[in-house]
Amino acid sequence: MSAPAYHHGDLRAALLDAALALLETGGVAALSLRAVARAAGVSAMAPYHHFKDRAALVAAVAAAGYDRLYAEKLAALAAAPDDPIARLVAGARNYVGFVIDNPALYRLMASPELAGRPHADLAKSAAAPAASLAALVAAARAAGQLGDAEPAAVALQLWAFAHGLGQLAIDGHAPGADVPALAESGAQALLRGLG
Amino acid sequence: MSAPAYHHGDLRAALLDAALALLETGGVAALSLRAVARAAGVSAMAPYHHFKDRAALVAAVAAAGYDRLYAEKLAALAAAPDDPIARLVAGARNYVGFVIDNPALYRLMASPELAGRPHADLAKSAAAPAASLAALVAAARAAGQLGDAEPAAVALQLWAFAHGLGQLAIDGHAPGADVPALAESGAQALLRGLG
Repeated sequence: MSAPAYHHGDLRAALLDAALALLETGGVAALSLRAVARAAGVSAMAPYHHFKDRAALVAAVAAAGYDRLYAEKLAALAAAPDDPIARLVAGARNYVGFVIDNPALYRLMASPELAGRPHADLAKSAAAPAASLAALVAAARAAGQLGDAEPAAVALQLWAFAHGLGQLAIDGHAPGADVPALAESGAQALLRGLG
Repeated sequence: MSAPAYHHGDLRAALLDAALALLETGGVAALSLRAVARAAGVSAMAPYHHFKDRAALVAAVAAAGYDRLYAEKLAALAAAPDDPIARLVAGARNYVGFVIDNPALYRLMASPELAGRPHADLAKSAAAPAASLAALVAAARAAGQLGDAEPAAVALQLWAFAHGLGQLAIDGHAPGADVPALAESGAQALLRGLG
């Protein structure tokens, strides 16, 4: 059997898809350049054209996670024209839904090693969700829906709530709870209380 | 030089103190029975009288973390007689302060491996902060300060906010922010909005 022939960009995408699948089945410990090459059906050396080492692969997987979070859960809200508070509440619900649907990926995206080690692609991908949050908070503030609360503080408090709730849920601390509904009611309450 | 002579309970406490110090300097990777024995100045076999393996040591360190969190930050609030909402807000501030003061210990306490692997001492230690939170939420509800919000949901939402804010802070996502003040204003807003 010969290895599949990939165009350059297609191989990178195929390696990332293989990495995401390995992550969901085996956790971050399963991520290695060798395992990704094997899963994608290419030579053990092929991934090195795209990722110089394991850390670069891990950062690229996390970046792909932020891209997916933004595209699937936040982009439509950021583009919608109506009530910014309603969009922030929906965003919190969608964010927590993403965490629950992608526990291993989210743990990787939020891992302290990545937070401490800047990586250009990762920073760019993580910036889109943050920018959409900041823009919605600014719109709510401009519409008089947040009183005189400081926008950066509101954004951090709302992110903290969604991040914390998602993490508690995937760590097994919310058995039986309707976590997306709690994300919605909590975000609504937080924003109402801050406003 | 002879090894120090310990009474049984004293040796366990000395080993845990050594483990907490190793954790703060080297992170969870620095925790091993051998390293703890060396740091405490006892034989390499001595820790095995108290911890059957590394997992048992790690669980005992996490349990010590919950004991310290409760004793230092929450017990006085749980015992105070006045306004339960004010005590919940102070508790959120104190909780986040603990996370910021003990980043490696908190990461260990919150690590998904521990959440997934029950351990009797750890469960007992983690129950005290949870019980004090539940009791304060129940008191606020009984005093008519939380409307008809479901107490277990309120407790989870408040914990999620404090947990998430503390984690974002120690992961470097809140540079320059007065995080304990944000814990206070966010908890106040969340509880006001839910009530």
